[in-house]
Amino acid sequence: MSDETDDAHLRETTLASEQVFRGRLLDVRRDTVRLPDGREAGREYIVHPGAVVVVPLLDDGRLVVERQWRYPMGRAMVEFPAGKLDAGEPPLACGVRELAEETGYRAAEWAHAGVLHNAIAYSNEHIEIWFARGLTPGEQRLDAGEFLDVVTMTADEMLALAAAGELTDAKTMVGLLWLQNWRAGRWPLIWRRAP
Amino acid sequence: MSDETDDAHLRETTLASEQVFRGRLLDVRRDTVRLPDGREAGREYIVHPGAVVVVPLLDDGRLVVERQWRYPMGRAMVEFPAGKLDAGEPPLACGVRELAEETGYRAAEWAHAGVLHNAIAYSNEHIEIWFARGLTPGEQRLDAGEFLDVVTMTADEMLALAAAGELTDAKTMVGLLWLQNWRAGRWPLIWRRAP
Repeated sequence: MSDETDDAHLRETTLASEQVFRGRLLDVRRDTVRLPDGREAGREYIVHPGAVVVVPLLDDGRLVVERQWRYPMGRAMVEFPAGKLDAGEPPLACGVRELAEETGYRAAEWAHAGVLHNAIAYSNEHIEIWFARGLTPGEQRLDAGEFLDVVTMTADEMLALAAAGELTDAKTMVGLLWLQNWRAGRWPLIWRRAP
Repeated sequence: MSDETDDAHLRETTLASEQVFRGRLLDVRRDTVRLPDGREAGREYIVHPGAVVVVPLLDDGRLVVERQWRYPMGRAMVEFPAGKLDAGEPPLACGVRELAEETGYRAAEWAHAGVLHNAIAYSNEHIEIWFARGLTPGEQRLDAGEFLDVVTMTADEMLALAAAGELTDAKTMVGLLWLQNWRAGRWPLIWRRAP
């Protein structure tokens, strides 16, 4: 699957790259590429620093979940806590920081589940998936201009919302895939003490 | 959960909107919004036409999967067939078209599973999830400049790749969440004949 020599018939190589928009959030590039058949094509995409999503497990089995207004969607969405990596920030440090800032919770143990890529047609964003347990509550410290509700739900409640189309956020649904398979004993997690 | 009157403390309202980049693929906007506390903030995001992902079930239980070069990722990715909605195109018609063009397969029956939102921080993209079964092979008709491999895998093989971090595409992982819960009898699908 990862044998790169097998991919010559698929590979696109960069001929030129241009930044076409640089805002406070988005860095948009337009590249010219060489296709596998030798022709040229354009590719437009976002350069993203990467992010972390946290699956926070309370001792009673419930999960810590947020409701947050997502402007591009025009509504509030049910999500696991998440945030962008600061420059040079290790993903676990980002998970610890975002969980504490957005929900107030601190975790005794963390486990790295995996990574997801959420918009491979037009963004290089990767989202690292971390599980957190041994949670103790504390004070939320939201950024200026950040507003969100913190709620708790069982996994079954979250899965029912997903089945009903009321929970549609991809990183949260992928977190549920990990949670369901970990709890069924199929996908192992290796826990470590909080940094 | 969907009671909009409950969300006044989260809601952001549009004050101004500007198109800051319009390429062949990406439509990038920068809006000014009113925050719940009355202050103003900027919001940058992609306006996207929406897309469809297809979970194609062969009669022997295997799935039809693609390997495609994803330029922003710099490598080939394992994915369910998917594609963007053409202007005014119904999602099912898009699923039928993309499955036929990319893999050659035509399905006797289709079922709508749900929708996912893959980049809610900076895109309004929604991806409709359709299941297809009763598949008969045919001729692939790729667009000019489109190159991809079609392979078949069992669900267990795909889940093992996901657990190992070799299958990380969010729409495909969410398709696996639907597949796993449908096969377990938890998330029902309503099948209809192909249009």
